[in-house]
Amino acid sequence: MTDQEYMTHALELARKGCGFVSPNPMVGAVIVKNNKVIGQGWHEKYGQLHAERNALVGCKESPHGATLYVTLEPCCHYGKTPPCTDAILESGITRVVIGTLDPNPLVSGKGVSILQAKGIEVLSGVLEKECLELNQVFFHYIKTKTPYVVMKYAMTMDGKIATSTGKSKWITGDQARIHVHKERHRYTGIMVGVGTVIADNPMLTCRLENGCNPIRIICDTHLRTPLNAQVVATASSVRTIIATCCAEKDRYMPYEIAGCEILLIPKEDNHIDLQILMQQLGILKIDSLILEGGGTLNASAMQSGIVNKVQAYIAPKLFGGDEARTPIGGSGIDEPTYCFKLKNQKLTWFGEDLLLESEVEYPCLQE
Amino acid sequence: MTDQEYMTHALELARKGCGFVSPNPMVGAVIVKNNKVIGQGWHEKYGQLHAERNALVGCKESPHGATLYVTLEPCCHYGKTPPCTDAILESGITRVVIGTLDPNPLVSGKGVSILQAKGIEVLSGVLEKECLELNQVFFHYIKTKTPYVVMKYAMTMDGKIATSTGKSKWITGDQARIHVHKERHRYTGIMVGVGTVIADNPMLTCRLENGCNPIRIICDTHLRTPLNAQVVATASSVRTIIATCCAEKDRYMPYEIAGCEILLIPKEDNHIDLQILMQQLGILKIDSLILEGGGTLNASAMQSGIVNKVQAYIAPKLFGGDEARTPIGGSGIDEPTYCFKLKNQKLTWFGEDLLLESEVEYPCLQE
Repeated sequence: MTDQEYMTHALELARKGCGFVSPNPMVGAVIVKNNKVIGQGWHEKYGQLHAERNALVGCKESPHGATLYVTLEPCCHYGKTPPCTDAILESGITRVVIGTLDPNPLVSGKGVSILQAKGIEVLSGVLEKECLELNQVFFHYIKTKTPYVVMKYAMTMDGKIATSTGKSKWITGDQARIHVHKERHRYTGIMVGVGTVIADNPMLTCRLENGCNPIRIICDTHLRTPLNAQVVATASSVRTIIATCCAEKDRYMPYEIAGCEILLIPKEDNHIDLQILMQQLGILKIDSLILEGGGTLNASAMQSGIVNKVQAYIAPKLFGGDEARTPIGGSGIDEPTYCFKLKNQKLTWFGEDLLLESEVEYPCLQE
Repeated sequence: MTDQEYMTHALELARKGCGFVSPNPMVGAVIVKNNKVIGQGWHEKYGQLHAERNALVGCKESPHGATLYVTLEPCCHYGKTPPCTDAILESGITRVVIGTLDPNPLVSGKGVSILQAKGIEVLSGVLEKECLELNQVFFHYIKTKTPYVVMKYAMTMDGKIATSTGKSKWITGDQARIHVHKERHRYTGIMVGVGTVIADNPMLTCRLENGCNPIRIICDTHLRTPLNAQVVATASSVRTIIATCCAEKDRYMPYEIAGCEILLIPKEDNHIDLQILMQQLGILKIDSLILEGGGTLNASAMQSGIVNKVQAYIAPKLFGGDEARTPIGGSGIDEPTYCFKLKNQKLTWFGEDLLLESEVEYPCLQE
């Protein structure tokens, strides 16, 4: 097998950590000796062993003289676990093939240098694009210290997210809705506006077996979330953050007693300053979130420049209606040339529904 | 080569008639003898020779004992040209392979019977699906006597066909816009509402070299089309039909003098009765049209049940805006379950723009 093929296998292993390792990256490792895989592993859970160590632990024979394939540059610093470069040097591995360097400019390339200084042959950049894509969230978070924001909506082929009477159950079919729950497992947080909480009283949990619930974040400028809302009632078992501009303690105390966390955020343009909210969430180690807001929150999010990716599920249906809600409301742009541009489109079918994903290309790069 | 392969070639030939044969079907024919193509042809232009006869005319050697591949059942009646079955029988061809039978229930299968009665071996249904799809328009028109209606719009990924200030130039890129002109060549008519004429003053022509201009149809209930609009000014060179409920001769005469045709249509729900308009256009041999209406006309068209296919060009852009226009306006449906359903989705990329095409599945079938 070629370097590419072993790296492909390491990538597959890495993906098994999806949803469990945040805010760490997903990493996979394969140890090969005489053209035979003698060990493999991945970073399974935040705080536990890194992929390289898991692969070494599971080796069926001595890794002496073997090649290590790893999707991300091995770390060379003490974090929750000791440096992986130490483990590699101790193991007797003589060649290391790396997918992508560490994105943190302070340490990028240091792991490679340490290994090379000890006489290990290092090749990096194998399947680099795929390895970068795998950890888009991690790379974004490490550079910006703010969550990677995915704006998700389901619309009809005529661009409606609800009928003219406000009904939206359901636009997409079962397969698309299952995928939405996989995404809720994958990303660390889920954010909606208080309008959605009042209108739909959603749980915002991940309804997959063994799935992780995302941290629920409610944007609630004036603290209007009903105290009997499901998100409040279940806040002691599913982490729930209410971001508000309301600093009156006697108003927000009942939410705290119910188990919610209150995040006081300054006001900007009569709503929560979303850029500051993202910085605050970043400090709380929330590396990513799905924005399942309505048109108003989506419009503010686009204007604030916090959205990194758009996920549009498009159902083979037409609702019609001048008054029917669309994915992004607000005042919108005036001139087509001033639109928000999207790039790197990707299509996936879920039954009859189409998922169209694109990255947001802000005029000035956010990163 | 197999029957399928020769039929594929016949299909390719048939497509060369696209835009020139309406309201006839596109048909291609290949004559094969001793595994060699000795003749081929297609229906090139309405009123001229059918594909079978064109293939026979071009034969490089005697078709005696040869096989004819033809995408549609040969005709057995006198139309603009004599029956093709006669020509086949005279030629000495001994085997005929047919894509699809004639959709007209009055003659379907008759051509086959005539050939079989004279001892010719007939195989039909080879690449039937492809042959049916090729002539979707023809099959619809022959059965319903009304045009096949394609509702076309270009929208952003958040479902807007214009900005909140009404600007729509441009949503899609060059490649998609060139394809729109190919479609204008392909379909017989193009229909817009008077609102579009007043707002954009469009030409609605096909701007491709050697392209055919579609017949322009303006839905203008109260006859508000400006007399100095481009469609009126050029009506003597590009056929233009104004459909209106205004029966006052002194009001519609100026349009007729300018070269427009006036079609008086009864009023339904305060706008032109679109079903009756379609019947009238069918009588005028308009077998197909592209509906490039705004949200209001599109809503009426959906409600009237006249739309057969939806073409949504989706650009990688976001406009936002509660007031921005969407593809289908009107009052819309109330309950998601009562939506208009779409089926047989098809995707094509034009540069960065996506064309999503679907057929409309009305609760009670139109055909």
